[in-house]
Amino acid sequence: MAKAAPQTSGDVRLSLPEALKQIRWNESGLVPVVTQDAKSNKVLMMAWMNEEALTKTLATGDVHYYSRSRQKLWRKGETSGHTQKLTDLRVDCDADTLLAKVVQTGVACHTGRPSCFYQQLEDFS
Amino acid sequence: MAKAAPQTSGDVRLSLPEALKQIRWNESGLVPVVTQDAKSNKVLMMAWMNEEALTKTLATGDVHYYSRSRQKLWRKGETSGHTQKLTDLRVDCDADTLLAKVVQTGVACHTGRPSCFYQQLEDFS
Repeated sequence: MAKAAPQTSGDVRLSLPEALKQIRWNESGLVPVVTQDAKSNKVLMMAWMNEEALTKTLATGDVHYYSRSRQKLWRKGETSGHTQKLTDLRVDCDADTLLAKVVQTGVACHTGRPSCFYQQLEDFS
Repeated sequence: MAKAAPQTSGDVRLSLPEALKQIRWNESGLVPVVTQDAKSNKVLMMAWMNEEALTKTLATGDVHYYSRSRQKLWRKGETSGHTQKLTDLRVDCDADTLLAKVVQTGVACHTGRPSCFYQQLEDFS
């Protein structure tokens, strides 16, 4: 049986300076970002932000990531037109992962699928 | 304007051996897992699996992770009772992130909140 949950309040509001101080960037100065469709709640993709990507995302409302393969800042949709407009950004309890809710234009995945998570494990349990 | 998406089919089914071959484990033998509530679609948490955690999760239906801080396999809820029953597991397009949908008993976050993503950025854009 589940133990009773400890008493806690609900959501906490964070300013950008507070978030920048709190976020535990990895050894490459990056933090993973889970991106979720604000309307359907579908999880669209997982990517990475550095401090510049986060700051630009919050300043413009257009989601920016840091491409590890190309080693540069990347505004989502800059070549495809499949942009992401930020509606909510959250930091997790140990400040090492972000959750971005977005209005997605077109599709999130470079394969043309709505979500990058299209490969489904079969036959479990 | 968004370009037309390339023509693609929908979801792809993967067997466990195919998944184990395909997944791009990081230099520590781990892969990040986004965990989503199967009913509410709330994103609950982000954690890590190694091959053993993935195999045990699929064999038992109880979500197992690998704890980087404790350096050991960890069945979610083994001390708190707040277990996660797997309903769907997916691999993303470049096979470096998993998405687990779960029926959560109790709460996902050790703070007692339903989701670990309770810190919300204020005042953007």
